[in-house]
Amino acid sequence: MQDEQTKKDLLLRLKKIEGQVRGVQKMIDDDRYCVDLLIQLAAIRSGVNKVGLSILENHTKGCVAKAVKDDRGDQAIDELMEVINKFIK
Amino acid sequence: MQDEQTKKDLLLRLKKIEGQVRGVQKMIDDDRYCVDLLIQLAAIRSGVNKVGLSILENHTKGCVAKAVKDDRGDQAIDELMEVINKFIK
Amino acid sequence: MQDEQTKKDLLLRLKKIEGQVRGVQKMIDDDRYCVDLLIQLAAIRSGVNKVGLSILENHTKGCVAKAVKDDRGDQAIDELMEVINKFIK
Amino acid sequence: MQDEQTKKDLLLRLKKIEGQVRGVQKMIDDDRYCVDLLIQLAAIRSGVNKVGLSILENHTKGCVAKAVKDDRGDQAIDELMEVINKFIK
Repeated sequence: MQDEQTKKDLLLRLKKIEGQVRGVQKMIDDDRYCVDLLIQLAAIRSGVNKVGLSILENHTKGCVAKAVKDDRGDQAIDELMEVINKFIK
Repeated sequence: MQDEQTKKDLLLRLKKIEGQVRGVQKMIDDDRYCVDLLIQLAAIRSGVNKVGLSILENHTKGCVAKAVKDDRGDQAIDELMEVINKFIK
Repeated sequence: MQDEQTKKDLLLRLKKIEGQVRGVQKMIDDDRYCVDLLIQLAAIRSGVNKVGLSILENHTKGCVAKAVKDDRGDQAIDELMEVINKFIK
Repeated sequence: MQDEQTKKDLLLRLKKIEGQVRGVQKMIDDDRYCVDLLIQLAAIRSGVNKVGLSILENHTKGCVAKAVKDDRGDQAIDELMEVINKFIK
């Protein structure tokens, strides 16, 4: 669904998040200060949100827009809202 | 942008949120227990999110879908993403 | 639980939020653009979060700290975590 | 800062999150449906929040409680609030 450049960009960002998650494991092993762990987790959470928004944008500009043009927009938008609901809480 | 039934429903929900916000003020005046205040604030936050999602849905099914059909979808979706970004944080 | 200055400050902020909630109702009555409604709701949500954090801080510095000194800290902190959980979602 | 059982539990949960992040990368490579990616990202976000809350709880019951008993509670709580603020947005 994503073009090649977007896919590359998303993969890079997820690679970075994966590294951060591994980093937190190492911080726990090393008994690092809790607040430093929490700051790192907040950064991961923020990175996940950004990847989510980017995929959301592509999905809306791609699949949802196509569905709207094919007159099956409402169904695609219901599905979209359900998934947005999982993020906005 | 909203049909009459949706407007009525949104106004009812906002009226309820307004009452809850006034309720928290009274709880502060009455020196009520902080945790009870926080539970009430979490309920307000959740109510605001629900109103937001409902407006988001209507906006997407209405204005955004129309923009997509008129081939100005990308701009409408960029604007949509910017406002979703304010909620997903 | 809050000192007089904090109570005054919280009441002012809640008064402002109450006004913003009423403002959104007026915007709906006036058929204002959905995105403007959503921006206003995001501001309300952010205001509610700020009031919540302020009460959380007072509660932790007051009741929770007192409980810790009285060796009933764990129970107070469990209650604290439960309510934080309602905000972090 | 965490006892051995908690560390083990946190590491397991982070291992799972790491696997989920890798899973999303594979889903992108496989051109999987965007909504499935978003559902997976929402699960990661939720997992990160849970790890964060668990560390927050340990930190509060450990370091913060100790600081309160040593009469340097306010400083520890200010630091705590700052990091909670990064999650509640």
